[in-house]
Formats: sequence, structure tokens, C-alpha cells
Amino acid sequence: MEKLTESTLLVEEAAHFIETCYVELGKSEQEIRRRVAEIEREIDSTGSYLHTKEELQHGARMAWRNNNRCIGRLFWQTLEIFDEREAETEEQVFSAIVRHLRFAFNGGQIRPAITVFKQSDQSGMRIWNHQLLRYAGYEQGGRLVGDSSSLAFTKQCEALGWRGAGSGFDLLPVVIGEAGKQPKWFELPDDAKPEVAIGHPDWPEMAELGVKWYAVPLISDMKLEIGGIEYGMAPFNGWYMGTEIGARNLADEDRYDLLPTMAKIMGLDTGSQRTLWKDKALVELNVAVLESFAEAGVTIVDHHTAAKQFRNFEKIEEREGRKVTGNWAWLIPPVSPATTHIFHKPYKNDVVKPNYFYQQAPYGE
Amino acid sequence: MEKLTESTLLVEEAAHFIETCYVELGKSEQEIRRRVAEIEREIDSTGSYLHTKEELQHGARMAWRNNNRCIGRLFWQTLEIFDEREAETEEQVFSAIVRHLRFAFNGGQIRPAITVFKQSDQSGMRIWNHQLLRYAGYEQGGRLVGDSSSLAFTKQCEALGWRGAGSGFDLLPVVIGEAGKQPKWFELPDDAKPEVAIGHPDWPEMAELGVKWYAVPLISDMKLEIGGIEYGMAPFNGWYMGTEIGARNLADEDRYDLLPTMAKIMGLDTGSQRTLWKDKALVELNVAVLESFAEAGVTIVDHHTAAKQFRNFEKIEEREGRKVTGNWAWLIPPVSPATTHIFHKPYKNDVVKPNYFYQQAPYGE
Ligand code: HEM
Ligand code: HEM
Repeated sequence: MEKLTESTLLVEEAAHFIETCYVELGKSEQEIRRRVAEIEREIDSTGSYLHTKEELQHGARMAWRNNNRCIGRLFWQTLEIFDEREAETEEQVFSAIVRHLRFAFNGGQIRPAITVFKQSDQSGMRIWNHQLLRYAGYEQGGRLVGDSSSLAFTKQCEALGWRGAGSGFDLLPVVIGEAGKQPKWFELPDDAKPEVAIGHPDWPEMAELGVKWYAVPLISDMKLEIGGIEYGMAPFNGWYMGTEIGARNLADEDRYDLLPTMAKIMGLDTGSQRTLWKDKALVELNVAVLESFAEAGVTIVDHHTAAKQFRNFEKIEEREGRKVTGNWAWLIPPVSPATTHIFHKPYKNDVVKPNYFYQQAPYGE
Repeated sequence: MEKLTESTLLVEEAAHFIETCYVELGKSEQEIRRRVAEIEREIDSTGSYLHTKEELQHGARMAWRNNNRCIGRLFWQTLEIFDEREAETEEQVFSAIVRHLRFAFNGGQIRPAITVFKQSDQSGMRIWNHQLLRYAGYEQGGRLVGDSSSLAFTKQCEALGWRGAGSGFDLLPVVIGEAGKQPKWFELPDDAKPEVAIGHPDWPEMAELGVKWYAVPLISDMKLEIGGIEYGMAPFNGWYMGTEIGARNLADEDRYDLLPTMAKIMGLDTGSQRTLWKDKALVELNVAVLESFAEAGVTIVDHHTAAKQFRNFEKIEEREGRKVTGNWAWLIPPVSPATTHIFHKPYKNDVVKPNYFYQQAPYGE
């Protein structure tokens, strides 16, 4: 009985996806009916169904288009899909990941891409990293070194036998395996872990801090859901919006906390909040990030340009007769938010599928 | 029947308010019971009830404490209440307003205050201004002069016979009268309309723009609701948080739009968004506001200090066993929001009464 209900739900979700997807792809009513009937039979006999390559590709793109928190959605149709549903072993998954990173980095001209592995009802394998490129975080006698957001995962890596150099910017290994079981870990080859040294055109002392950031944001712990099918391993990347690095990763007090250092380099009076030293340091830290990426020839977008691109996205979606949902709190940039149009309008945070979702971590945090 | 239900609701709201209010004021169970019974009799015979001075005072303070959008709530207990429920004529209301403005400004040492006039079931009189001090906005042949947010109200004033000088900073008259009827308008005396000239310590050209802002934010179009009773005329003031002026009133593209001008004065390269010229100009415009107010000896708070004060408020409320509700989107400052603790936590936007609410404008907008 429970099985039956589940199947019915899956058929419904599949049919809903196929209809939307196929209409967007310009297919006929007949093709839709035929494909839905086929999926229904497949679910009847196997309890699940497989997406065609085309469905997978368009589904992953729709999922991006539907993600309420993403300001980069204008480019949803350019998403490159790597279909790696054949990959069985941890080694095969890892080599697909390396390929993805090389493709995405592309010598600095970053390309949005996703690699989709087996669906979750066929494999319990998971990538344990939050992002494929990410710095380790260590707590050494109450003192934090590196990225605090990686503390728990770094401990996991150490338990597996990995040892970091103990610097503030140790790239973590890639950890792959069944949830709850002993996973395997892999070191990325050098050409698959590009980084950018951060300096400021006006303050050379900034470069001497040795601050850097990785070039490709590649989220590897979210699941992709298309037509009722979940893909628990579907790492995807875009390029960075500068504020993610300059106003959060490097600036948050419980992350790299660089505003006081930046203010010191700039010679600001930090004795009173009224001098707005934090705001001045924040802007210049963000200039440093944008200029350093540009200098290194690595794609990055500033928040003003990103907001403008998002406005274009909204216009196009309206023209196409699709409602744009959004999460205002995530869409506004953390620097000068009121200078973007996003700040001045409301967004409906309804969840539309396909989409990317959080899922339980494969290890106890 | 409808009358009865309304009365029942009013009794309920009144009883709820009296219980909370009297417990906070340290009164006994007996006093609560006695006062609730008294109010019940009053509603039975008159359909409504009057607050004691003490209830009005504590109710207005609770209303401030409960306002989800206000970051300044730490100081809720310092609110000064002027009870002007006896005022009958427009002239009497106006003279109470002048007294309020003088008290609030206090030579620059701004004091939070509210003046409460007759409750709405006794008088339909309203103050037509959004804020008591506010600049006129004119559209002259497609060109905007002054504050665009005052366009409709400025037209109303002109229809009443008022004429502004046509500058960018013409303080509007005070308009008082029954909603929908012919109101009276009054010019404030000079000592009741303090302003601050805005200049920047590092860029003297800024002062030459002739930009200024009024010293006291005094909202006059919201209604105060206490224990089921509505006060449609209850103007209140605090002091400014700098970003309200520097990041919204003077910066928004559809308000005074000063970022391009500021950037020019600063000699910034505005050719590309990536230089973050908007963010740099925004920070310095906010420095200008804060420094100019400080220089003029007028109370103002920067957003970092305000956020810290709000954190204190949250701690005290927790200690008192009261839940702090909040509207995240309004509480985060529009400059460097992620540098404040508010950005990093969720707030429940539940409406708790007493509170301040929007009400319909007394004129067609
Ligand atoms: C192409 C350039 C892209 C830019 C500039 C961009 C920008 C952003 C930004 C600024 C955020 C907020 C991140 C945060 O505050 O932590 C975000 C969130 C997100 N983006 Fe994008 N994005 C891009 C590409 C993509 C792609 C290719 C996908 C998926 C195919 C994607 C899916 C998402 C998702 C799922 C989130 C929410 C993450 C979460 O909930 O934690 N984005 N994006
Ligand atoms: C003492 C200094 C005060 C500061 C620094 C302060 C700060 C603020 C700020 C920054 C806002 C958001 C304004 C906006 O974004 O438009 C706000 C909203 C508000 N404040 Fe305060 N406030 C103060 C005093 C008061 C007082 C005395 C009251 C009432 C007794 C009050 C009631 C409100 C209300 C009702 C709102 C919401 C207005 C709306 O919904 O449009 N505040 N406050």
C-alpha cells in the first residue's frame, strides 16, 4: 500500500516534469503522452524510472532556473551537463570530478557545469565535501586556523588519515563513499585546483598577507531533484560573485575575519564605529577580490553587474510567461544592497521543481 | 449583533492589554481584575473606553518595543509621552506639534517622544504629513526637484494654497484636518524645524552642493493601537540612524540620487561597476551624514552601534522572558549588512500589540 502510494506520487511528479520539460523543448502532445505512458510502465515494473539524456540536461537547467537563492540564473541555459550515471566506483567518480573541475576552470574562462551521477535509489554513494574546492579549518588550542566552516569535515578527513599542512589555506581532499561507511579520499591534481592570490592595487601590503581563494565555487553536497527522482551526487559550479568571497568568506568574524587587518593596512581609525572603518575596509576587500580575479584572468562578477543580469533574467522569464520565484534575503548582496533593484521589490519564495536541495550530511556533524 | 461582537472583541483586547501592562507595572491581580471590570462596564455603556495616563504611557512604550521594523528599541522605556487627548481644534493640535518638535530636538540632544491625540472613535482628525519634517517634491516638466517621496503630498499642499520656494529642500507645511475634508495648513516656526548641512571632512566640494537634512525623524501618519483602541494621530520621533539618510533618502536613484555626484567629487572611475564606485561613494556619503550631524551636535547613530544596541535589547528581552519579534528585511542596515549580527540570525515577524500600524491616507494618493 505504501509502495503503491509512493509509485503514484512518483508518476505524478514525473508526468508534471515531462509535460513542462517537453513543452519547453518544443515536443508534441503525442510525444508527451507517449513518454509519460512509458515512464508509468517503467515505474510499475521497477518502482522507479530513468531520465533520458535530454531530460537530465534540461531538468538540471530548469533546477538552476528555479533556485530562489541564486542571482546568477540568467545563464541557466548555458549549463553544461556531464552524464556520469555509469560511474560505479569511488575512483570513477573522482576521475569524473577532476574532468569537471578542468572543464569548469577552462584556463580562467569559467564555464557553469554539473556532473550527474547515479540517482539516489540506485546508489547511496555521496561526495562528502560541501564544495570540491574548500579550505581546511583547524582548532589548535582554542585558536582557529583556516576556514571555520570546514572544522567538522576537516576532522573527518583527518580521521581517514589525511594530514593538512596546517596553513590557513589547505585545500581539502575529495572524499567519496557510501553515507555512514568508510569512504575513500583523493588529492586533486594541481591543474584541477586553481587558486587566485588576493592583493589590492593601492595597498601592496595586502598581498603580503598571503590571502588567496580558489577560483571555482563547486557545490557538491546538494541533491538535484527532477521529476521525483533524486540525484544525491550532482556537483555543480558557476563563477563567483565577488561578495561571496570579499563580504562573507574573508570578512565574516567567524570566518577569515579580515576587516580589522584590512583597516590596519589602510591606516583607518578603528577607535569609533562612526568612522565607518568596517564599511571602508569591506569595500576595499571586495575591490581586492575583484581586481585580483580580473588580474589573474579568472571570471568573477561584481554584485552590481550580477543584479543587472538578474534583472534581465526576470524580464526574460516574464516574457516567457514564467513566474520568477526568489529568496529576497539571499538575493540581496551583502554589500550596498539598496543600490540594487532587488532590494526594492518583494519576491515570492515558493519552491518550484526541478530544484537543488539540501540533504543530510553523510557523516555525523 | 455586530455591535455586540465588536464590543466583545474590544473587551478581549482591552483585558489582554491591561493584564500584560499591569503585570509589567508591578500591579496586583486585584488591581487588574478591578480595572478590567471597570473597562467592561465602560464599553457596555459607551461602546468604548478611555486609557488612564499610565496605560497610555506604558502602552505607547510597549508599542515601540513591539515594532518589528525598528532597530532602536533598546530605548523603549525612555519614550516621553505627551497626552493631548484634550486638543480639539487644528490650532490646538498644531501647537502641541510645535511643542513636541522643540522637546524632541532639545538643542541637538534628541529625545524620543510621542504626542497622543484623541482616539479615532472620538475624532476623525488626522495629520496629513508622512513625517512632520519632510521636503517637498516637484515635477517640473519631467524633471524632479526635491524629494520624490513627497510628490503627492506636495500637490495637496499646493491645492490648499501653500507655495514652496521650489528648491530641493523646501520643508513642507503641517497639514491637519478631518480625512476627506478641507484641512488647515501651518508653517512651523524656525526653532521647530532644525536642519543639518551635509558636508564631508575630506571633500569640501560636498558642502558646496547645498545638501542638508532635517534633524528629527518624526513619523506622523501611523496609528498607535493599544488594547483595541486606535489613535490615528500619534506622531512619534526617535533620532536618525545614519543609513536612513545616507543610504536611502540621499542615495536611492528615485530619491536624491547622490551617488554619481559623490563619485564625481571623489574622482572615482565610474566607467565600470567593478571598481565598486557606487559602494565607495555610498560609504563616504554615509560618513558625511554621520560627521555632519556630529559636528552640528545633533544626535545620530551609525548602523554598527545601532545593531549593537539592538543586540543588547534582545538580551534584555530574553532575560525578561519576552520573545523578540523582528522583520529581518527592515532590521538589516542597507550598508554592509553582513557586518552586523542581525544578518546572521532569523527573526519571527509575528505582530504583537500594542503596536504602530499603517493606516489609510486622509487624502487620495
Ligand atoms: C554562473 C554564475 C553563478 C553565479 C554568479 C551565482 C551566484 C550565486 C550566489 C551569489 C549565490 C548565493 C550564495 C551564498 O550567499 O552563499 C548562489 C546560490 C545558489 N546558486 Fe548560483 N550562481 C551561479 C551559477 C550557479 C549554477 C550553475 C547553479 C546550479 C546549476 C547554481 C545554483 C545555486 C544554488 C542551488 C544556490 C543556493 C545554495 C544554497 O542554498 O546554499 N548557481 N548563486
Ligand atoms: C531612538 C532612536 C530610534 C532609532 C535609531 C530608530 C531606528 C529605526 C530605523 C532605522 C527604522 C527603519 C526605517 C526605515 O528603514 O525606513 C525604524 C523603523 C521604525 N521605528 Fe524606530 N528608531 C528609533 C526610535 C523610534 C521610536 C521612538 C518609535 C516609536 C515610539 C519607533 C518606531 C518605529 C516604527 C513604527 C518603525 C517602522 C516604520 C514603518 O513601518 O514604516 N522608533 N526605526
